Parts: sequence; structure tokens; C-alpha cells
Amino acid sequence: MSLAMPLLNQERLWRSTQELAAFTLPDQPWTRRAFSDLFLQSRQWLLKQFEEAGLSVRLDAAGNLIGRREGRKPGLAPITTGSHCDTVMYGGRYDGIIGVLAGLEVARCLNEQNIQLDHPFEVVDFLSEEPSDYGVSCVGSRAMGGVLSETMLAERNPQGETLAQGIARIGGRPEELRQARRAPGDTAAFVELHIEQGPVLESRNLPIGVVSNIVGICRHRIIVTGRPDHAGTTPMDIRRDALVGASLIISEVDRKARRALGGPDYLVATIGNLSLTPNASNAVPGRVEMMVEVRSDRQELMQSFTEELLAQLRPEIETMGLGLEAAQVSLAKPTDCTPDVMSIIEQAASALGYQSMVMPSGAGHDAVYMAPSGPMGMIFIPCLNGRSHCPEESITSEQLLDGTRVLYQTVVMLDQSLEN
Amino acid sequence: MSLAMPLLNQERLWRSTQELAAFTLPDQPWTRRAFSDLFLQSRQWLLKQFEEAGLSVRLDAAGNLIGRREGRKPGLAPITTGSHCDTVMYGGRYDGIIGVLAGLEVARCLNEQNIQLDHPFEVVDFLSEEPSDYGVSCVGSRAMGGVLSETMLAERNPQGETLAQGIARIGGRPEELRQARRAPGDTAAFVELHIEQGPVLESRNLPIGVVSNIVGICRHRIIVTGRPDHAGTTPMDIRRDALVGASLIISEVDRKARRALGGPDYLVATIGNLSLTPNASNAVPGRVEMMVEVRSDRQELMQSFTEELLAQLRPEIETMGLGLEAAQVSLAKPTDCTPDVMSIIEQAASALGYQSMVMPSGAGHDAVYMAPSGPMGMIFIPCLNGRSHCPEESITSEQLLDGTRVLYQTVVMLDQSLEN
Repeated sequence: MSLAMPLLNQERLWRSTQELAAFTLPDQPWTRRAFSDLFLQSRQWLLKQFEEAGLSVRLDAAGNLIGRREGRKPGLAPITTGSHCDTVMYGGRYDGIIGVLAGLEVARCLNEQNIQLDHPFEVVDFLSEEPSDYGVSCVGSRAMGGVLSETMLAERNPQGETLAQGIARIGGRPEELRQARRAPGDTAAFVELHIEQGPVLESRNLPIGVVSNIVGICRHRIIVTGRPDHAGTTPMDIRRDALVGASLIISEVDRKARRALGGPDYLVATIGNLSLTPNASNAVPGRVEMMVEVRSDRQELMQSFTEELLAQLRPEIETMGLGLEAAQVSLAKPTDCTPDVMSIIEQAASALGYQSMVMPSGAGHDAVYMAPSGPMGMIFIPCLNGRSHCPEESITSEQLLDGTRVLYQTVVMLDQSLEN
Repeated sequence: MSLAMPLLNQERLWRSTQELAAFTLPDQPWTRRAFSDLFLQSRQWLLKQFEEAGLSVRLDAAGNLIGRREGRKPGLAPITTGSHCDTVMYGGRYDGIIGVLAGLEVARCLNEQNIQLDHPFEVVDFLSEEPSDYGVSCVGSRAMGGVLSETMLAERNPQGETLAQGIARIGGRPEELRQARRAPGDTAAFVELHIEQGPVLESRNLPIGVVSNIVGICRHRIIVTGRPDHAGTTPMDIRRDALVGASLIISEVDRKARRALGGPDYLVATIGNLSLTPNASNAVPGRVEMMVEVRSDRQELMQSFTEELLAQLRPEIETMGLGLEAAQVSLAKPTDCTPDVMSIIEQAASALGYQSMVMPSGAGHDAVYMAPSGPMGMIFIPCLNGRSHCPEESITSEQLLDGTRVLYQTVVMLDQSLEN
């Protein structure tokens, strides 16, 4: 028993994504870095779209651009959707922006049908979800969650500007940051539509993912210390080559994470960042520093991974005459989506005739920082070959329409089901 | 039957090394980069020492500083010694400079004893033996060997200056570079004293090494290509992680080179230089580029090493979904020292009561480029723990005296034995 499809305008929605994606550094597609002039130009465009959709628009103290449509019943907290419009360097055309533009299309569609929800409806373009030039990610949503710290505000970009100065430059008011904060209950519900950024939906030929949780991230810095020696004059048997020790760790991180495949929990582990000292072809590496990143929906598993790994390898590495140090440098706990919101997303998809699956999000999202303010959920759509954060990132107009329909239906069902 | 020891002045020789080593960037000991102002200051000091030792001094077209003492017989080619006074960043106090200052001490000693050799005697401070900021090493000796190419002269330092401009700036005449060239027969013999830069002499408690050859160096750039993916959203079983593939290569380079230990040939192999793309903690490495450097006194062994290695690992790496490319980027053939010169060094050491051993040089030296101009040999002395190119590089005054005595005696014996 499928409902009639929401009367969304597929062509308009797709054109919006192409117009916004076109704000890119021409020689480095697709790049639209938060805080850049190009980013500000794209926001001017977005502001105009919001206004044309009849939304009242404001920039909050943290630099989030918020479009709002009032609800019928006074005093209710808003149902909020949104995502981000910034990109990584050489990123893709869809990561982030579809969550904002789908929200915009929902607002247009509600207008065109003269539907007024009980709750206010908000579309948010969160400031700088991607790691910014100041080294801080999720700038806008952290501020809404009340966790954008003074330390973070004092971080500087390569030009020496602080994040606080950057927020002020793009129109925020960092000295009034608390006004941007959303306390528990300030949001009736938050739902974010995003591309999966992975291959699971595509490989199962499913149009909709219902996110169960956003995995935690645990990062350890590992330092292997050997002795920098002349690569020509130091015989093999007296070397203490830190890179040779590091290669054991690289192999075992991969092997150990693969052993968790097929188990009940999501787990991935990666060494994506590595540096040698010295880093010269004629020198035995004396020091290797690398970052091990483990993500899982189960916090214990994630935190024990690196400790177990190092306990296992330490004897062999020390036998090689090498030192081994490790320190946890960051820990973001897994964030569960709200079961009631997940259930409504599943019902919305099903009511529209879409098959869906429940799945974790391996990537972080603004939704993490919205969770404290109210019930939270996320909708995923597939992306080509699971690729993201690269120019090859791709979706079809139909896939975007599928996700936006489910977002629309979810918003309508949340409006009806949430306590008024 | 030991000869009487040459009447060298140990205290003066040692003081000279300390005075020259003291020309260092104060906050980055021991650093005296070729072409720097500090380097020019140290050369002013050296020029004064040369002049006080009665040497006639000139800067050749390639920027080599040459002190010369005339011989008794007209028309003979010179017996030449020398090394270099530049350092790597954070290098040591003895690498290079002792070969110049020992030559200076030999000249002083000849003066003080009123000994005139048959041959002219030259002490050379070769320009920029260490890899320069222009990316070229052995600048001065390459010019003497006639192999400092136009391509090399056009290389630029990070400030955009060409090597040719740099040579002109420090007083050379790059447009007349051919005048610096030494054709076959232009040198009666060349002998270079240097620290071993390795641990062999120290571990055997020997004061003198007689170098048999300067090992060849063969470098391959290896590129492992996978797929850059999001480290959070890409399950382990569909990753193509270039760093995991590279770790196999790193381990096997070490293992394969160790297998040659105890064999008849010298062989060392190192991956000292490695870079990831992207190099971000939240990205699966899509590309790893690294340099494999193999050094050996046997050219076939050196050249086949990397090819064999890659043939062995290619199936496993390709099974991981990775691409593997390799290209040879440089090849310096092993350079044999002249048997007659080796024999005279051995006799000189023995006549002075020193035990010595014949050994290869794992490091490159200016002597390589002097070999075409005449018979060539090298004398090694031990250094503490075999360390070099680092602030811990150390020798004793006695070790330096031992080597300088053997150099003196070698020069005297060469003067007598070479055809006049």
C-alpha cells in the first residue's frame, strides 16, 4: 500500500545541485572550501534560493545559514533538516549539499501544496563540516551542540587568522556563540539526508539507508623510533630501521581489522597518515610517526583495537632494537540515532514503496552534534562505486529524488507523530 | 720495522678541525651548507690557513678552493689530496673537513721539515660534496671530472637561483667550467682521507681502512597504486590500500638485503624516502611513492636486486588489487680504487706500525670524480659508533692523527714511486 509520491520537482532539485556544485575553484574541481570567497558567493546564491522558497533566513552567531518556515502551532520546537555546503580539496559534487538542497526542495513542495506543518520547519547549511583550514571540523554544528571550545576558536589557519576571526569574517558573531547553541529540547527532531560515501547500498541495489548510528572514531599516534644512519655505510645487521618496524604495524592493522569482517560489529582501521624522519633516500629512517584510526559502532572494540595490536607486536619490534610509543589523540564516541526517528524513516520509505536497510555511518556528520538537542536520524542514498571526497563522486537525479521523497515523507510523519 | 712517525702537530691539527667545525648555524649544529654566507666565511678562514701554510691559493672555475705547493721537478702532474667543508643539515663536525685539514697539516709539516717533493702537492676543498640546495651533490668534483652537466647547472634552489648562478655568486666562473676539468693524466695521484661513516673499523678496533672501491648506487622509484577511499565508510574487504601493499615491499627489501650478509659482496638496501597520497588520517592511502636505494660493490647484484624483489612480490600485490610500477632513476657504478695506490696506503700504514683492513666505502665521495684524472685511493679512520651525518658524529684527536700520518706517508711514498 504505497502512498502517492510527494510532489517534488525532480528537475528543479537536480538543477539546484548542479548550480551549487558549480561554485568550485575552476582548476581544482570540486573545491569550495569553507570561509573562502567562493564559499561566500555560494552562500549568497543559497540565501536567494531560501528566500525565493519563502523561508525567513538568518545567519546564526556560529555562521550557520538557517532558513525557517513557521508552523501552525505556536511555541513548538522546529523539525530541522540540513547538512553542509563546503567541500574538501578536490572533493565531490554531492557530499553535503544534497542535504541542504533536499531540505530546500521539501520547503518548496510544502509551499506549492499550501501545506502548513504543526511544527516550524528549518533547513540549515552548517558551517564547515569538513576539516577547515583551522584544523577544526563541524564548526557550525559543534557550536549548536555547545562544544565549540575556546581552544578550537583560537586555532589558526595557515595565514594566521583564528577560527573566531574567520567566523566573524563570514558574518558570524563569535562573541555571542552561546546564542547559536541548541539545548536539549530545542529541536523537535533533526533529520539529515546524505550520500552513503561507501559501497554498501549500491552493492545491494537498495535506494535508502536508515542510519542506526554514526560510528565512533579513535585515533592513536604511533611513533616507532630507531636510529637514523647512513644508508650506504651501515651494514644490514646493525641497522635499527624504524620504517621496517612500522611496516609490521601497517600489515597487522589491516589483517586485524579484516578478521572482524563478518562479525556482529562494524569495524574499520586505517593508517592513512605517515611521516619519516629523515625522509631521504640515503638515510635509514630513524623515526616513523603514523596515525592509526579505528572506527566502530562499538566503543570497547574501537578502544581496545590499537592497544591489543601494540601488545601483540611490541616484542618483535623491540627485538629489532626499535622503540614503540603510542598515545590516544582523539576519541569520538559512537552516536546512536534515535530509534523512533529510525522507525519513522523506515516507515516513510516503506510507505513510498522503497526498500531500505539499517546501516551504520562510517563517516562523521553534523547530525552527531545535533543529537543532544532532540531526536535525530539520518537517511542515506547510494553513490557511484561508493566513492566520495573525490571528483569521481557521483549520484543520479533519480537517486537524489528517492532520498528527498523519503526526507519529505519523514518530515511530514514526524510532524504528525511528535508530541505537540 | 717501523719508520719514525711524521712530525705532524697533533694539537694544531685538532685545533684546526674545531675552529672550522665552529662555523655552524648556532641553533642547528652542525650545519654549514655549501653556498651559504656561513660557508663563505669558513672558506675565508680556510684561505688564510692555506696562505699561512705557504700554499698558493686559487678558486677554480667550478668553485673548488685549491692550495698548491710546487714540486722540485718541473712539468709533473700534482699529487692531490682533499675533501669537502660543507655539511648536511644537522650534520657532524668531521665528515669532509678532516680530509682538507689533514692535507693542510701535511703541507705545514713538509714546510717545517723543508721537504720538497718531486711532484706539486695540492690540497682541495671541493665545492658542495653533500647534496646541495640545488639537488646536485659533488658539484666541484663533478666539474673536475667533466660531468657537471648543463642540466645540473640549470637546477634551481628553493629561492629560484640556478646552480650556475650559485657557483658564480661564491666566486666561480661557470661559463669557463671546462678550465676546472682534469683530463686523464692531469693528476699524478689523488688520495682522500675521510671518516668511515660506518661501524666496521671501530668494531674491529682498527685505526686505518684502505678503501677498495666506492660502492655503486642504484635507485628505483616504486609506485604502488590503490584507490583513495573514505577511511570510515569503506569496509575492509573492498579496500585497495596502497600503504598495505607498500608494507610488503618495505619488509622484503630488508629481508632480502639481510640474506646477502656474510656473502662475498657488500650489499645494503634501504627505503629511506616514502610519501603517501592522500596523507590524511581519515583517508585510505591511494598511492605510495618510495625510493629503494641499493648499494653494492658488485654492479650486477645491485641492479638485479630491485627487479628480483618486484618480480617476487608482484603477484601478491596485484592480488590485493594494487598497481605496481618501478623505474630506475639513477645509477652510479661502483668505482674501484687504483690497486697501486691501495698498495702504497697499506705499505704506508704498515711502515708506521698501523694495522689496517681493506674495505669498500658505502658512501659516495669526491674521489669518485677524481678517478678519471689519475690513480686514486682513499684512507678511512673510525668514527664513534659508526655514526655520521648527525650531531653525534665523533672522532678522537688520536684517530685523526693516525689517519693524517698515513696520508703524509702515502703522499711521500707516492712521490717516490710514481713515474717522474
